[in-house]
Amino acid sequence: MSNETGTPAPRIPRDPQDDYTRAQAALRVDFVAEQTGVRLAHVDKYSFDPSILPGNIENFIGVAQVPIGLAGPLLVNGEHAQGSFYVPMATTEGTLVASYNRGMRLLTECGGVKATVVEQYMQRSPVFIMDDAVKARDLGHWIEANFEAIREVAESTTHAGRLINIGQYAVGPLRNLRFNFTTGDAAGQNMTGKATLAACEWIKAHYPGGAQFMLSGNMDTDKKHSQINMLQTRGKRVVAEAVIRRDILKRLMGVDTVDLFRARQISQAGAFLAGAANNGQHAANGLAAMFIACGQDAADVAESHAGVTYCQLLDNGDYYWSITLTSLIVATYGGGTGLPTQRECLEMLGCYGAGGANKFAEICAAVVLAGDTSLSAAVLHGDWVTSHDQLGRNRK
Amino acid sequence: MSNETGTPAPRIPRDPQDDYTRAQAALRVDFVAEQTGVRLAHVDKYSFDPSILPGNIENFIGVAQVPIGLAGPLLVNGEHAQGSFYVPMATTEGTLVASYNRGMRLLTECGGVKATVVEQYMQRSPVFIMDDAVKARDLGHWIEANFEAIREVAESTTHAGRLINIGQYAVGPLRNLRFNFTTGDAAGQNMTGKATLAACEWIKAHYPGGAQFMLSGNMDTDKKHSQINMLQTRGKRVVAEAVIRRDILKRLMGVDTVDLFRARQISQAGAFLAGAANNGQHAANGLAAMFIACGQDAADVAESHAGVTYCQLLDNGDYYWSITLTSLIVATYGGGTGLPTQRECLEMLGCYGAGGANKFAEICAAVVLAGDTSLSAAVLHGDWVTSHDQLGRNRK
Amino acid sequence: MSNETGTPAPRIPRDPQDDYTRAQAALRVDFVAEQTGVRLAHVDKYSFDPSILPGNIENFIGVAQVPIGLAGPLLVNGEHAQGSFYVPMATTEGTLVASYNRGMRLLTECGGVKATVVEQYMQRSPVFIMDDAVKARDLGHWIEANFEAIREVAESTTHAGRLINIGQYAVGPLRNLRFNFTTGDAAGQNMTGKATLAACEWIKAHYPGGAQFMLSGNMDTDKKHSQINMLQTRGKRVVAEAVIRRDILKRLMGVDTVDLFRARQISQAGAFLAGAANNGQHAANGLAAMFIACGQDAADVAESHAGVTYCQLLDNGDYYWSITLTSLIVATYGGGTGLPTQRECLEMLGCYGAGGANKFAEICAAVVLAGDTSLSAAVLHGDWVTSHDQLGRNRK
Amino acid sequence: MSNETGTPAPRIPRDPQDDYTRAQAALRVDFVAEQTGVRLAHVDKYSFDPSILPGNIENFIGVAQVPIGLAGPLLVNGEHAQGSFYVPMATTEGTLVASYNRGMRLLTECGGVKATVVEQYMQRSPVFIMDDAVKARDLGHWIEANFEAIREVAESTTHAGRLINIGQYAVGPLRNLRFNFTTGDAAGQNMTGKATLAACEWIKAHYPGGAQFMLSGNMDTDKKHSQINMLQTRGKRVVAEAVIRRDILKRLMGVDTVDLFRARQISQAGAFLAGAANNGQHAANGLAAMFIACGQDAADVAESHAGVTYCQLLDNGDYYWSITLTSLIVATYGGGTGLPTQRECLEMLGCYGAGGANKFAEICAAVVLAGDTSLSAAVLHGDWVTSHDQLGRNRK
Repeated sequence: MSNETGTPAPRIPRDPQDDYTRAQAALRVDFVAEQTGVRLAHVDKYSFDPSILPGNIENFIGVAQVPIGLAGPLLVNGEHAQGSFYVPMATTEGTLVASYNRGMRLLTECGGVKATVVEQYMQRSPVFIMDDAVKARDLGHWIEANFEAIREVAESTTHAGRLINIGQYAVGPLRNLRFNFTTGDAAGQNMTGKATLAACEWIKAHYPGGAQFMLSGNMDTDKKHSQINMLQTRGKRVVAEAVIRRDILKRLMGVDTVDLFRARQISQAGAFLAGAANNGQHAANGLAAMFIACGQDAADVAESHAGVTYCQLLDNGDYYWSITLTSLIVATYGGGTGLPTQRECLEMLGCYGAGGANKFAEICAAVVLAGDTSLSAAVLHGDWVTSHDQLGRNRK
Repeated sequence: MSNETGTPAPRIPRDPQDDYTRAQAALRVDFVAEQTGVRLAHVDKYSFDPSILPGNIENFIGVAQVPIGLAGPLLVNGEHAQGSFYVPMATTEGTLVASYNRGMRLLTECGGVKATVVEQYMQRSPVFIMDDAVKARDLGHWIEANFEAIREVAESTTHAGRLINIGQYAVGPLRNLRFNFTTGDAAGQNMTGKATLAACEWIKAHYPGGAQFMLSGNMDTDKKHSQINMLQTRGKRVVAEAVIRRDILKRLMGVDTVDLFRARQISQAGAFLAGAANNGQHAANGLAAMFIACGQDAADVAESHAGVTYCQLLDNGDYYWSITLTSLIVATYGGGTGLPTQRECLEMLGCYGAGGANKFAEICAAVVLAGDTSLSAAVLHGDWVTSHDQLGRNRK
Repeated sequence: MSNETGTPAPRIPRDPQDDYTRAQAALRVDFVAEQTGVRLAHVDKYSFDPSILPGNIENFIGVAQVPIGLAGPLLVNGEHAQGSFYVPMATTEGTLVASYNRGMRLLTECGGVKATVVEQYMQRSPVFIMDDAVKARDLGHWIEANFEAIREVAESTTHAGRLINIGQYAVGPLRNLRFNFTTGDAAGQNMTGKATLAACEWIKAHYPGGAQFMLSGNMDTDKKHSQINMLQTRGKRVVAEAVIRRDILKRLMGVDTVDLFRARQISQAGAFLAGAANNGQHAANGLAAMFIACGQDAADVAESHAGVTYCQLLDNGDYYWSITLTSLIVATYGGGTGLPTQRECLEMLGCYGAGGANKFAEICAAVVLAGDTSLSAAVLHGDWVTSHDQLGRNRK
Repeated sequence: MSNETGTPAPRIPRDPQDDYTRAQAALRVDFVAEQTGVRLAHVDKYSFDPSILPGNIENFIGVAQVPIGLAGPLLVNGEHAQGSFYVPMATTEGTLVASYNRGMRLLTECGGVKATVVEQYMQRSPVFIMDDAVKARDLGHWIEANFEAIREVAESTTHAGRLINIGQYAVGPLRNLRFNFTTGDAAGQNMTGKATLAACEWIKAHYPGGAQFMLSGNMDTDKKHSQINMLQTRGKRVVAEAVIRRDILKRLMGVDTVDLFRARQISQAGAFLAGAANNGQHAANGLAAMFIACGQDAADVAESHAGVTYCQLLDNGDYYWSITLTSLIVATYGGGTGLPTQRECLEMLGCYGAGGANKFAEICAAVVLAGDTSLSAAVLHGDWVTSHDQLGRNRK
């Protein structure tokens, strides 16, 4: 709601000493009422003390209450996630939970989902700006030669972070670097930012002749989908795979694996032509719902929803289906994971705290696979199977 | 948490007659406790009656409480959004609200943000599967020739939806269609799905010789970033633009517009090389926070975060900055917008209900611009300005 | 070869009155000898009079002699190309002709290739630069409303060109336009450039308040691969499709269609992840060879090699294979098509001159399909078939 | 031209013993005349003995005579290319040579072009197909651990090739590998193919339990543009950079650097939105012309034309301009480089044979820069400068 006078709108009240109290929140709720005429009667209902919030929010006024539905059981045969899981999904999109639930049933009856983290890196991508391309290349070689020293400096700033390698991407007089870290159970954006800054300052100080940098040259690519993230991994690269039995698919969803595989050829062509971030169905749906429930950074859906679906129809008519999420950014420690409802949801999955991140990543990927099978079957069932001449069947 | 015995994990309790009650939710909370050992003590605190939830969630167990911070005022000179706004942002990422707040102050002091919806379409992309490419092309021509009839059939299923045009994308024997609708104040995925299905059934029934289709050939591309969405618009194409005054930027953020513009050349090159969905900074952060607060579909961050930044340094040293969000999917009606906290947040912005969607879209874009200016300045301030020889300054 | 003195290197001799003679060419050959020490003894052997060259080259010194190999027969069942063709391919890459020849034999024995031009557009993409996004959108609407007048102005500059539609792509205060023309048997880049310029000048003169433009905003995208070209067609969108018989493939190439289809799943995933311009094999090889032989613009390989492969394994084990070249830029009139060797090669295919462009496009696509089948089989035959446990066969 | 009878078209005559003679070529020319009615009177004029052609062509019938124009002098200050060069450009597109020539003059008067090869790799990308993602990851780790042994096997097949590293890209049960080699003065596609095959056979034989592979999983991406090639380099990554003096640009081309830089912001936005392979102008034009003249593989224009333009306007109004070609595939040894006209053209540049490849790459990049400056100025000069209110000048 706008103010109508010419005077500048007032600043939001804030107590620099002690802003994380119910009283301060209430003050701002009053302020909202004054400025907008809207009395927040639900936003200000929350079941925790605001004193837990530093590091999570500023100018706290209350909470969004996002409904959580329960889906499952989903049988996962992961390296870290093993057994049947009941998955909390926070969403306001009707049928989402039901559809994922249906896919979980299918996969569980088919023996469950294999899930695996195959690679993991969090990164910060500074850029060094040199006078010309030769000088930039020279710097690049020097950085390679001094990797161990750089690694030590970077790692000195963090307990959990390990600098694994530094990718280099040359553009004109610029040397874009991609510092790839492992970050334990944290997502690690801040940890890697701090470590990379220290490393860059060290390079700047020690490189003969000096070197200018910016901490990000936009190749991270933080909170953004990108092909480089798909190729080089951002967060965790996780694979979920299952063999869908022909009889069970038919019984539960009314479609044939043969038709599903034919449809896959079509949707692969469509995704390729569209320049899509994922040639599967709707990974973002399951991920966003789990992210909100479990205290992940929902902005990371931008990166996390990217993926590659790879399938094969087996000789016996069963259907091997895999989804590789290339840039899944999750954490079970830090960020929003310790907030009350968020922590409870992680605990439901046995994923809260140290050691939980890979397990949680495996469950996420398995959930995505469940959702993709369910939606694919639904799209197909709508028309194709009931029609008489199906794709390719009668092609001459 | 997994079960350890060989018996299948039990199904989630559900009452097909009346599942949207506190009792049913409590039953499932008990079930969670039994199955996982976790007693949900915060998730089950919510301030509304579950009877409002049909159409938003299944197997309801409670809510995620996501902290909301207040940012603003942000002065917007839009076509629909006019005045100073206080923006609710739901996030668990510390500094996010503070950083956006800082950008809002900058833009407001510089005279505010122009914001405009320049195009809007929601779509469903069915694919027709023909015997060969000639037959697919013939069908395509027939669809063009019969557009009016198809439009009538499609629009007969909806009050708000209008079929504007049908894009065609030929691949082999396939004819991918992109039915582009306007959808009023709803995001419109379901509306367009239903209307497109009716249209496709009509085509199938009336096309001489018949025609097979799938309702989606993966060119929508629903819940997925894609280049086609950037090019052809999905949801709303919104531009936010501002002229940042050199003196104000320096005073508030300590950086010079000239340096900011130089840095922009670098981050544009980085984004282009990375194959990024957005050559700006972190649109996803602001959007995810507003989406969760305001009852939008958080999965649509996947599409919505895409954008193109276009800037010019003006002769007087001020800095023209625009961000074009090409695929912003928002609604002020339907979906999660009517839930209690979500509705309150939309109301704070004066956007709830009919007529609010374009206004909300303009505010979203303005918020994104605020966040991008703030982060860009922060990245730059870290090193560049303090150093003696800056990029290009001394280049010979 | 460089000169070593400090004096500037001399300008190339040129006779502004009459530069297209053997004498002038010889003068420059002497100049080359003086400046570089290299006497061009083969370059200066050409079988035609340089007087034919205006419009094709400046500063003529002789010719590159590129070896042409003959491939075929290739049976094409196109709309314009019908019958068996012997294809001239100019290349210096050994085995290229042999490999394409092998694929042609396969396809011909399988009954030939269906080939069809399903869409065609050549474009120029000017950009109008307005004060803000609202003004840019207003201009866009005005252009839509005045399309007929704009079309007339554009078409007044050309005999063959027809303006079909104008795509609009909004970015900030910019309005990128894509003027889509049909251009008869010419590739049409210059024709569309001239027509678009006239149209833009008209818009600039007639739009109330005026409007600035650049003739290209880089969305054409001339001589560059791009996703927009794949989506919206540049040049001709051509499909070649064939059903490969299982027995014939096995006999001629030693591989099974079932294995070939399994391999396709892998190469589709690879191309998608790589962000490739084509999920097939090596379209550029066949196209470059035909382009050089037949007087096409070899730089257009950049755009022309893009494509989408779509396949299905049929119930009887035969293999339906299609390739859709989305941006094939070819001509049978103008440009290099009238030069002696180039014209002979077009004539061999019965494509020279008016009416030949679609026929030539169909043959190009059929040739690409031949090359892709041959290489795919070769890759597969290398290892897979001879091994005992093949992909997916024994998956449990 | 098609045959009209039902009998299959005859096979092309070929002498398996001695096919590379004028007599055999003439036999095929007669065959063409019989089959198509076209007598090749120019194609069969060539100045060399066909006995030199094995390894370059099959079924030789003659040559395409592609006109060569001379451009230059172009002053290059490279690491390998130093001095003024006269560049042979084979094309049939009128004005191409003139336009590049104009750009060369500009750059030369401005002090020449710095050019540098900053990275180089040729690759083959096999894919290993395992039972599941865990097994694929295990194989990946084993390959890392056994890199030295793999390198030795690979390098045992080649004199010039060196295996530098092996990139790994996991998708489901697949492990895509990218074997990155340096290849001396050859382009090296075949060399790396052979070496990679040996390495893969060794892995297959030595990996405990065995491992299936295909020699290409389509991530090479051979003869195809791709984002991975832009990121990770294919062939040579070459930078050309120059500082364009404001006064010289104005004198020679009639445009102001300030306007040129403003226009660059627009064309960068356009290229980003279009999903283009290059945000510069028309690299493919210059490269195709040099490739044909100098015996390069013209199909590699597909990969080679990709690039990133990065510019800065300097404080004094001069204009720093760089183009980074990320995937330039060139050779001065092997392939078509030894054919008569092609060799002469390489010799003109002092690039023929061992040691010439980097020099040739530098010249190629410098030529591309010349062409891009010339075309950019031409586009701009068309309208902008003559108009009164220019972009951004009067923006308020």
